[in-house]
Parts: sequence; structure tokens; C-alpha cells
Amino acid sequence: MENRMREQANRIVTASIRAVQPDDAVARALEGAVFPGRVLLVAAGKAAWQMAKAARDCLGDRIERGVVVTKYGHVMAPLPGIDCREAGHPVPDENSFSATQAALELVTGLEETDTVLFLLSGGGSALFEKPLVPPAVLQDITGQLLACGADIVEINTIRKRLSGVKGGRFAQVCAPAKVFSIVLSDILGDPLDMIASGPAVPDTTTCAQALAIAKKYDLKLTERAQSLLAQETPKTLDNVTTQITGSVRELCRAAAAECEKLGYTPLMLTDQLCCQAKEAGSFLASMLRTHAADGRKLAFLAGGETVVQLTGHGKGGRNQELALAAAPLLAGMKGVCVFSVGSDGTDGPTDAAGGYVDGETNAALAAKGIDPFQELKNNNAYHALTESGGLIITGPTGTNVNDVAVALLNPIE
Amino acid sequence: MENRMREQANRIVTASIRAVQPDDAVARALEGAVFPGRVLLVAAGKAAWQMAKAARDCLGDRIERGVVVTKYGHVMAPLPGIDCREAGHPVPDENSFSATQAALELVTGLEETDTVLFLLSGGGSALFEKPLVPPAVLQDITGQLLACGADIVEINTIRKRLSGVKGGRFAQVCAPAKVFSIVLSDILGDPLDMIASGPAVPDTTTCAQALAIAKKYDLKLTERAQSLLAQETPKTLDNVTTQITGSVRELCRAAAAECEKLGYTPLMLTDQLCCQAKEAGSFLASMLRTHAADGRKLAFLAGGETVVQLTGHGKGGRNQELALAAAPLLAGMKGVCVFSVGSDGTDGPTDAAGGYVDGETNAALAAKGIDPFQELKNNNAYHALTESGGLIITGPTGTNVNDVAVALLNPIE
Repeated sequence: MENRMREQANRIVTASIRAVQPDDAVARALEGAVFPGRVLLVAAGKAAWQMAKAARDCLGDRIERGVVVTKYGHVMAPLPGIDCREAGHPVPDENSFSATQAALELVTGLEETDTVLFLLSGGGSALFEKPLVPPAVLQDITGQLLACGADIVEINTIRKRLSGVKGGRFAQVCAPAKVFSIVLSDILGDPLDMIASGPAVPDTTTCAQALAIAKKYDLKLTERAQSLLAQETPKTLDNVTTQITGSVRELCRAAAAECEKLGYTPLMLTDQLCCQAKEAGSFLASMLRTHAADGRKLAFLAGGETVVQLTGHGKGGRNQELALAAAPLLAGMKGVCVFSVGSDGTDGPTDAAGGYVDGETNAALAAKGIDPFQELKNNNAYHALTESGGLIITGPTGTNVNDVAVALLNPIE
Repeated sequence: MENRMREQANRIVTASIRAVQPDDAVARALEGAVFPGRVLLVAAGKAAWQMAKAARDCLGDRIERGVVVTKYGHVMAPLPGIDCREAGHPVPDENSFSATQAALELVTGLEETDTVLFLLSGGGSALFEKPLVPPAVLQDITGQLLACGADIVEINTIRKRLSGVKGGRFAQVCAPAKVFSIVLSDILGDPLDMIASGPAVPDTTTCAQALAIAKKYDLKLTERAQSLLAQETPKTLDNVTTQITGSVRELCRAAAAECEKLGYTPLMLTDQLCCQAKEAGSFLASMLRTHAADGRKLAFLAGGETVVQLTGHGKGGRNQELALAAAPLLAGMKGVCVFSVGSDGTDGPTDAAGGYVDGETNAALAAKGIDPFQELKNNNAYHALTESGGLIITGPTGTNVNDVAVALLNPIE
């Protein structure tokens, strides 16, 4: 590993994640808001604890009670008056269901003057859930969708119809109380009803779309699930105010700004990346190969959410796969690196935020008898990057606005 | 289809292919060359006829006799004194073998003062072949390699060991005559021994590498094939002079220059693209989505050779798949298009050079009940693009320096 390049990668990762923390955004959203009655807090998603803390810092004891549901390891400290719970992600578990049930009980039977302060971030789809089919059936359908490479929009279109809280149904339970919703976005192009499957947003997807997706991927469904796909979700909600904040674009811009500080000319390719993770890594590496002789310090940036094609049973995540796929193409080059990181600090079901490779990675792997192509085929990037020292580990970050991948070219090194 | 965008795409395709015609390059290579004895011509590859014609235009009757072997439909006219033959590509057939045999007979028994003018272009791997295993076995192994997504470097490492002409073995047959070789390159980074598997180049690949590839893809080999993989190819050849010409970089530069003439700011991403075709299309489309609001006329260019993952039995090619994969992401956008073209004019086993899509393609397909994702899964891009009017058809072009993909963004349209 080239220490200088790795150090610069770490700086870019740290600066860009710091720039998309939800604290300021939550404070801005609450500024001047008037709450005539009681205020109850419900926060769900990977950034739920951080958002709840920011809200409590603003409103103090005006928040009567609250429920936070976030991923395991993401509750950083107790919050006064707020029931902080941890649950399963990306696959929901019993703790997701019981925490969601506690939130539903909290918001049932409120007055019209009351307010539910609803803080939502990515990951909420799994964490905030009341399944209308047995959990095992829901998990099976989610598993089928992930395995066949369905995108997040498709997955959510199906899932919200199998749920008692998604697709606007949570806001229906809150009524007649008002819902004041602050959303930290992790979805490309910010379609509100797709973030955590829109518990407090009128649903724009239709039964017809859900049935088409089921057909496209040949989903195996129970009779009950099949009939739920045909039940419409709320198309209007008059008790909800929504403020959206955070985006992968901000993440990319912050990364680009840090690249510039380090002397690179940043080239923002896209903030809507949605292709296969490993192919994006190959594409970025081929750009470095082509421009290696230019003699310029360049940084290519691509944000978004790539997809992983499951062909094995290893351990990894989309950011780790993207990085590892670049390693063979960079073999032997100096002053180049490719890294990719999820702003939430957890890439796939691993404790790493993402992965880093440079011109020395391939040789380091070869020396240990590791074939990157084989590891990618086994979806085992975590293993390979562990051996090359290429894991990027941040711990839970308090935010979640999707991923950014960076390819650096530093011909001076 | 947006007529203005399509017209600009056609102009860029035409100009870039014209810029990489081999005629001038062959003339330059022959300038000042001295041939003391007889001159025999052997030309192989998709550009073989055009290169042979250029050589004959320079040398006239100094060329005593010759053999051209090119793809079906690529002989444009008879050439005096030269036996022009057509054969199978990408899978070699009996005509490949008989034409190669004719070339071998032509160059056998020459004097030291004689010269074999050897004109090589991409496609030569299949067209110029003397199999050392039964043709059915060779075709089976080639098919296995293509089906499992092996890259061209891997395929050629295997194939040259199963051949009596590849890996420098053709030049051995020519000895003691001199070989004056002119090579039109279609391989990324121009490794000479990989172009058409280097019939007149000392081989840099080793038996160990060949055996490793066989293991990696779990190739089913006959005993004879297995033993041939272990036989070394020539590592030195003292009777060969080689001039290399043409490259995908020239193709990309010509495309960029034409984009500039049309008012676009060209951004050369890479000339070493090697990822999956449809994922490259998605990547390029996501760039257009991100930059759509910039208000600038931009052209993103990516040259190289993508790969196709075979998951169906439809008709298509890598350039067609790249373009079709972009269509859903561009749906409804104005003033954008993605197109990709093979400079040889034949993309996969089709009569199209490549494909074109724009913001109207997806709706045009939907109106005919065509799902682009499904067509890609079936490797059936030709069908979809036929229906959307998105095939790019040039006919055989006389050249072969790989592919270029272009994504145009014209916010003024």
C-alpha cells in the first residue's frame, strides 16, 4: 500500500462524511417551527440516533417522549425521555418489529394539536417495519429481491405493500396529530416516497407497478402477499409537513472540495451511479490507466448506489467490491488509488465503510495467493481487502446519504 | 428518436472511422522499405483487404503473389495477383483453415532474400488459423472461453498454443525469408503478441499462464489440448520487422475532434474500457443525468473493448448492449444520447456496427411491449434496437481498431 495515497484517501473520506452530518440540517429544519400541543419523537434509520440527539439539543424537554430505532451498534448514548432501540439491518428482525410497535403505540390516540416529530434516514426500510405477512415471508421476499439484483426502488415498491407503516401508512396512524417529518436522503434524485419506503409520504407507486415487479423477477409469493400487492396505499395525506435534507450530491461535493485542497483537479462524473459495483471499479481504473501519462493531479468522483450481483456466499459490500475490482487494472502503477465508501460507515453486512486499493494491492494479494477475480465471484471482497490492508473502517457515522467512489491520479508521487 | 441527435451521432461515427482507415498508415510503413528478393503478401484480419489494397497501390507488381483472408462480406473487389478469401469470424471455419493453409504454402521454401509482407489486423485470431487439434475441439474451447467471460488476452494465451501459426509460429514457417509485418492494432495498450495472437511476434505468454487460465475457468480440455498448452512458443524471432499502426486512441481522438466541431466540449474518459458492456452504458447514462442541468454541451468518450456476459441466446453485440442499457436511464430526457460503435463495422455476429439510444428510445420500446432489461438478459439488443430505429449500420469499414462509446449532452436542443 502506498502510504501517502492511503493517507489522502482517509482525509477525503473523513472530510466528506463530516460534511453530511445531520445535526445542522435538523436544527435548521426546526428553526421557527411552532408546536401547539405535545411533541412526540419517532426516529428511524441508520442516522436515527444522531438526528434524535440533534432534535433534543434544539427542543429539550419539549419532546415529551420518543422512540429511536437504528442499526445495531448505532446508539451512542442514552437520550433523556427517549427509548433508544437497536435492530436488524439490512434484514429486519424481531427487534425491528417490537421497536416499530412501540413507536406506533406512542403515536396512537393523539390530539389534533399534537405533533409527531418524525426523523427518517436510510436503513428505515428494514428498521421501521410492521409486517402484514409473517416475518419469515417478508424476509424471504426481501432476500429474493436482493438476490436477483432488484434496485432499491423496486424493492420498496413491493415492501411498502406488505407493511403497516410504509407507503404513508404510519402518518395515517398518527392522525389526527400533525407529522413534522425531517428526512435525510439516501436515494438518488430524492424521491421522497422511496426513502425508507415513505412512512409519512403519500405513495406514488401503484399496485400495477408492484405486480409487474413481482412478475419481472418471478417472485415466489404466498397468497396473502399476492393479495396485499393489490391493496392501494394512501395517495393523499393532509397532516404531514416534510423537510428533506442531505444528499449524495453534498457528499460528492464535499469529497471534491477535499480533493481540491489536496491539489487534485476534481472531475465529478456522476452522483447517480447505479451500475454494478465491480464494473464501476473497472471503469474508474480504466480512466486512471488512460490518464496516467497526462502529468496532472486528477480526482474522478462518482456518487450514488451501485448494485452487487450475488454469485457467491462470501462477505463484502458494494463499496468493497467496487474498490477490489479496480486492483488488477492498477497493478504496478504508481500514484494512483481507487476507494469507495458508504457514508453510513457500514458497507453491506460488514464492519467496514468501504475499500481502498492502489498499484501495490494486486501484488500484495498475489503474494498471499489471493485472486481478486475469484474473491469477487465469491462476493468475498472483505476477505481480500483485509489481507491487503484495504478496508476503510469508520464505525457508525451518524449519517447516511449513500456512497462516493474516488479515483486519484497523482503523477508527482 | 431525436433526429438532430441521431444525425450528430452519425457524423461522429463516420468521421472517427474514416480517421482510422489503414491506407495512409500502410503507405507510411512501406515508404523507403527495400525488398532485395521476391515479395509475397499475406494479409489476415477484418481490415485485411483494405490493407492489401493499400500495399498493392504502393508496391504494384513488386508483389509477386498473395493471400488475403478476411471476414465474409469484407472482400470489396479482386486484387491482381492476390488470392482474396473470406472466412468465419468470430468462430473460425473450414475456409479459415484452407485460406491459412494456402498462405503457409505461399511462404514455404523461400530464400533468405525474399520478403513476406504480412498485414495483420484484428479478427486475425479466428481468420488466420491452423489448428493443432481437431477444429471441433478448437471451436469448443473458444466457445467455452467466450461463454465464461474470459478477456481477449486470456483467450489468445490459450489459443496460440493450439495453433500452428499463432504465437510466432507463422514467422518460423517463413524463415529464412524476412517477414515485414504491418499491424493495425485493436488491443488495449497495444501488446503486439496479442494482436491476432501474434503470428509473427515472439510470444511473451508462458505455458504456466495458459495452464492457470485453463484452471481459472475450469476449461474442459482433451488430452491433446492439455499437452499442447504445455508446449512453449518461440521466445525470439530474428527474421521479423514490425511496424504497428492504428489504435483505439486515434479512434477516440477522432471522435472527440468531431464532437468539438459540433460544439461539444469533449471529455475523454478512457481508451482502455474493459468492463461489462451494459454496465458501461449505465455509467455513461448516469453521467448524463447528473450533468443535464449544467447547461453545457458536453461529450463523454470511452474507447476500448467491453465484454458481454452471456445469459441468453439472442442476437447482439457489445456496442449494442452498451447503448441499450443506457435507454432506461435516459427515458424522457431531451438533448441526450448514448451510442457505441465498433470501428470494424460488425458488432458481434450482426450486420450492425453498434447502437444508438436517446431520451425517446425507452418510450418507443415500451410502446412495442419491449422491456430493455429483459432483452439485455437475453443478449438480444439487436432486436430491441431494430424496433427503436437504434441500429448503427456502416457495413464493413476496412479498418478495425476497436470500439468507441459516446454520450452527448446538448441542453440547447
